[in-house]
Amino acid sequence: MSEHVFYSWSAQAELNPITVAGALGSWFWDDTGKRYLDFSSQLVNVNIGHQHPDIIAAIVEQAQILTTISPTVANDKRSELATMIAERAPGDLNRVFFTTGGAEAVEHAVRLARQHTGRTKMLAAYRSYHGGTGVAIGLTGEPRRWGTEPTNVDVVRFFGPYPYRSPWETTSPEEETAAALKHLEMVIQLEGAQNIAGLILESVIGTNGVLIPPPGYLAGVRELCTRYGIVYIADEVMVGFGRIGEWFACQAWDVEPDLITFAKGVNSGYVPLGGVVISEKIAQQFDHTPYPGGLTYSGHVLGCAAGVASINVFERDGILKHVRSVGEDVLGAGLSKLGESHPSVGEVRGKGFFWAVELVKDPQTREPLTPFAATGADNAAMAEVTKAAKSRGLWPFVAGNRLQIAPPLTTSEDEIRQGLEILDEVLDVADSLMR
Amino acid sequence: MSEHVFYSWSAQAELNPITVAGALGSWFWDDTGKRYLDFSSQLVNVNIGHQHPDIIAAIVEQAQILTTISPTVANDKRSELATMIAERAPGDLNRVFFTTGGAEAVEHAVRLARQHTGRTKMLAAYRSYHGGTGVAIGLTGEPRRWGTEPTNVDVVRFFGPYPYRSPWETTSPEEETAAALKHLEMVIQLEGAQNIAGLILESVIGTNGVLIPPPGYLAGVRELCTRYGIVYIADEVMVGFGRIGEWFACQAWDVEPDLITFAKGVNSGYVPLGGVVISEKIAQQFDHTPYPGGLTYSGHVLGCAAGVASINVFERDGILKHVRSVGEDVLGAGLSKLGESHPSVGEVRGKGFFWAVELVKDPQTREPLTPFAATGADNAAMAEVTKAAKSRGLWPFVAGNRLQIAPPLTTSEDEIRQGLEILDEVLDVADSLMR
Repeated sequence: MSEHVFYSWSAQAELNPITVAGALGSWFWDDTGKRYLDFSSQLVNVNIGHQHPDIIAAIVEQAQILTTISPTVANDKRSELATMIAERAPGDLNRVFFTTGGAEAVEHAVRLARQHTGRTKMLAAYRSYHGGTGVAIGLTGEPRRWGTEPTNVDVVRFFGPYPYRSPWETTSPEEETAAALKHLEMVIQLEGAQNIAGLILESVIGTNGVLIPPPGYLAGVRELCTRYGIVYIADEVMVGFGRIGEWFACQAWDVEPDLITFAKGVNSGYVPLGGVVISEKIAQQFDHTPYPGGLTYSGHVLGCAAGVASINVFERDGILKHVRSVGEDVLGAGLSKLGESHPSVGEVRGKGFFWAVELVKDPQTREPLTPFAATGADNAAMAEVTKAAKSRGLWPFVAGNRLQIAPPLTTSEDEIRQGLEILDEVLDVADSLMR
Repeated sequence: MSEHVFYSWSAQAELNPITVAGALGSWFWDDTGKRYLDFSSQLVNVNIGHQHPDIIAAIVEQAQILTTISPTVANDKRSELATMIAERAPGDLNRVFFTTGGAEAVEHAVRLARQHTGRTKMLAAYRSYHGGTGVAIGLTGEPRRWGTEPTNVDVVRFFGPYPYRSPWETTSPEEETAAALKHLEMVIQLEGAQNIAGLILESVIGTNGVLIPPPGYLAGVRELCTRYGIVYIADEVMVGFGRIGEWFACQAWDVEPDLITFAKGVNSGYVPLGGVVISEKIAQQFDHTPYPGGLTYSGHVLGCAAGVASINVFERDGILKHVRSVGEDVLGAGLSKLGESHPSVGEVRGKGFFWAVELVKDPQTREPLTPFAATGADNAAMAEVTKAAKSRGLWPFVAGNRLQIAPPLTTSEDEIRQGLEILDEVLDVADSLMR
């Protein structure tokens, strides 16, 4: 660790990070040789696993030809990846604007929505994260925005469905969908549809709880957006590219947004890359009017080469199918079984290779094991759970009172079972912290 | 060119970009084999030249060890680059927060300034560009922000010095400095220093004119910021890492900002990378309070490896010295000589490997060859000048009515002379378009 590195989201003097020396597949290790089974895919980005030989080979090959060139010119790899993404995106989402990551993708999606509609207000959900830059953090509906407020991005927040902690006290997923859509329409009416440029929504809410949309919710959102002329932006930075077993998560619910933001899984972050997939009707508006946005590294050649290689491996190795079957039959089933035997588990929910184990002090009251937005000492219980996992060589993705399980999509059945065995012990620790 | 790529800052149907197939040193070529001498460093980012063998070797080597790891852990390359940057930065600028590019660097610099002061207003200059994301585009003082307004970032704009087109009708650089500082202090007083978090200023104004600060200006800005408790952010995304012959451009004027933003030249964009260099006194505020910001690819390992290799090549090959001597004696001298023989050249100005040739219809009135923020047909003259350069195999960086000359810092004397010969012909074309 260098005293010269300033770390994200952290109190600098209180950090004592491990030093990661190497990684392969679903494993990484520190400079003492201690190995960790990665049940986080780092920040839910290393979808294809660490140091995948085919992606490394593609990077090495492309590095020797051309690493980068101005976004004002064309390049084969840039074109090839855009074509591959367009072919896999739903409906008429047919053009790709490349960025270096998810926050910038959200920035440009919002700009496109505002330009397309001539309106400014944006609808965004509580319990959401959309990125760290100006507009993206302003749309974010969880505590990480607090340090940046006031953000002044003209955002209107709504509640999305969360059956386990329903904002409307519903008792079934179907009721939750109905209540959430009624609430959303009421917000639209009270804000004035004619003032609302776009609605941004994670197709599966990621860091804020792996909230799988209940039946009919995304279709209902699509219908409301269509009816009121609002651009529907599906934020799939975390859940796109296979995380739940589909190229784009919205495809699991047969929904076609107007714009999709992506990053992370597109090339597993081996080279920073993100972007927006744009519907033809929005893209055509800029056929003869300049689009007012850009960045030096749009369509970065090395990043695009890694993306092309990654999609090819997904296809060759049947990764989407692996995620769907092993995700349900081994990972999901195993977590649900753990939930039954550990009283600290309030709910297990998820899809594909993305699950949340929500930890509570009391299954009846559903009081979280650590309070919402806990800071400092209040966070002690989850810190101890995290430590229990890491000391046993399992690296979880911890958010609030949840263990969020997001292994690389190439993780084998055996490795999933190894992780579940460790989680069984970790949940014993959680059980001991309930009161 | 793929119909699926959506391009930056462009009317999509009016594009007819060349397809770049490869590049080496100061040259790149399209898929027909046509070669271009790169007098732009693309978007002023390929400082070390295209496909530098040492940087490629470093990328290939690092790719086989570890491409990426979460920003929450430590890694040797991340630490090494932070240390190398801290060692080269002025004063107590000692900690580095890494981003993927310049816009995100600006976002975080502003967040640091606001957190540090508890104030919100930002001072930013007209004729500036700070990036395309929410806060960065809001600070931008040139037409590219128009498509995104209202940006609502609580920005107060001031005029910086521009002797050739003085906002105060001064007649010498010294007068210009005095007038600009008086103007800036008046703005501070009228806005209320107690409300102003930070001031952001490109140490040399880049895309908006290669405006070299006149004697005493940056020192005066530093003094005003110190006196009024305003965080001074030097935006060196375009001019840091050797562009004017110094690691950081502010060092040419012996000025120590509180924060420096960088990107582009740090590793020539071979892998997207940027960041903020932070003074100890600001960084220490986050020793025990979490910094409210982050991103998935902060401290990207492959990007940092390219940065370490690039700085090592700069040192080994004496690139800063090359830029200072060849920049003044060959490039600057050659451009000035061209200016004397071509009536369309209103002014030649610059430093190191960064120069502007400002083209006018009339040297007396200084009327620009194309009007400010020209769109469509009004832009015809500069489009013809650009075409004249490209058809002769010279790739310039064109901004407004200026040919901006920014070759890779590794460009040889001979290559500079080749480019100057072509520019001589291109300026004949400009001369023919004056009336």
